[in-house]
Amino acid sequence: MPRSAYELYYWPDIQGRGEFVRLALEDAGAAYADVARLPAAKGGGVDALMRFLQGRPHGLRPFAPPFLKSGRLVIAQTANILLYLGPRVGLAGRDDASRFGAHQLQLTVTDLVAEVHDTHHPIASALYYEAQKGEAKARAGSFVGERLPKFLGYFEQVLRDNGGRHMIGRRASYVDLSMFQLLAGLDYAFPKAMRRLAAKTRLLRALKERVEARERIAAYLASARRIAFNEDGIFRHYPELDL
Amino acid sequence: MPRSAYELYYWPDIQGRGEFVRLALEDAGAAYADVARLPAAKGGGVDALMRFLQGRPHGLRPFAPPFLKSGRLVIAQTANILLYLGPRVGLAGRDDASRFGAHQLQLTVTDLVAEVHDTHHPIASALYYEAQKGEAKARAGSFVGERLPKFLGYFEQVLRDNGGRHMIGRRASYVDLSMFQLLAGLDYAFPKAMRRLAAKTRLLRALKERVEARERIAAYLASARRIAFNEDGIFRHYPELDL
Repeated sequence: MPRSAYELYYWPDIQGRGEFVRLALEDAGAAYADVARLPAAKGGGVDALMRFLQGRPHGLRPFAPPFLKSGRLVIAQTANILLYLGPRVGLAGRDDASRFGAHQLQLTVTDLVAEVHDTHHPIASALYYEAQKGEAKARAGSFVGERLPKFLGYFEQVLRDNGGRHMIGRRASYVDLSMFQLLAGLDYAFPKAMRRLAAKTRLLRALKERVEARERIAAYLASARRIAFNEDGIFRHYPELDL
Repeated sequence: MPRSAYELYYWPDIQGRGEFVRLALEDAGAAYADVARLPAAKGGGVDALMRFLQGRPHGLRPFAPPFLKSGRLVIAQTANILLYLGPRVGLAGRDDASRFGAHQLQLTVTDLVAEVHDTHHPIASALYYEAQKGEAKARAGSFVGERLPKFLGYFEQVLRDNGGRHMIGRRASYVDLSMFQLLAGLDYAFPKAMRRLAAKTRLLRALKERVEARERIAAYLASARRIAFNEDGIFRHYPELDL
């Protein structure tokens, strides 16, 4: 495997939680390897990822992907990875208010992502969606009706409080990139619900357009490196859940 | 309200997520005000908390309690608060491996806590437990059967990897305190399941005993400041879910 500054370990066939990290690395133009997507002959593949989860690692063992190797450090938990990467790749401020503020917003993104996952898996992650379809419909109803408007209303308000251009600070941060990814995923999974919410999320919609027009993000989204949304990921389009 | 170094804002009648912060403040002997538990005449009460959620705050708006005011900073998200507090009150190391490692573990605690919450609210937070009892039983089954052993097995392994005394580093950290709280809550909510897991969590059980014997923690647990577990909190004892 070629040596890169960063090695990202995440499932190779979905955007999932790893995509929030990929976007930050891509926007920064960082040299990174997406290890599980490399051929096994080059030290990649899912086996390389599983070795970290099952074996005694160099440092602290991760509970689950994604995790990032940077020098001797192995850092797990999506928001924790971005907390680490942000100031190193120019996507976060370094003062306390910026660092803890950006991380607070990212953790709220994490919470919403977990609730999105549970719309299609309300009973058990280990069971297929088809085995929990009825419960999924009930959970998706409360998600689309209450939780989604509450979360997006909060993010819209935070963006308004901050002047409308960026989620935090006066420059683009990893939180802006994550907000793009969140809206892209929600648009894919819940297109009808998101159209209903469009008038109440005008600032977020405009932020999403600005992010996808960023040069490196646009190039990434047009490349084969960007995995398409699909029904193995977190954001799944099941029309019966788009209530 | 008396001026304290730290002001914690959390619901006054439950341990909930705020308890992870209370334990760190108590163990450190920090001067803090638990604002919503103070009388309204002293600037306390739930109204003081709601003003932060509803009004334009000094800094970044919180999505939900708990949040901590420290000088001009207002920090939300339990694990983010501990990330901030840890090195300031002597409950976390300052090097990268310690900081990001402790936070990684705390975020995994956060994930488990969210899954505990969803055992009694698998369909909607806004509905009573009684309205989702059947689904709760199904979700609790997969939680107790798969997720709980997986999470506790991970934490036990991390503790073993680190020598058995502390979750991370060579001294007590906020992660050790959180592990105590997690086990205390799980013992309350799922006593039968936790007894079954006892043989596979020997190091964690011993860590829990050491934490509850710490002088300031023991004093806190014996005081009126420690709210009892109850069925409005996250860890609820519903015998029908203790499968």
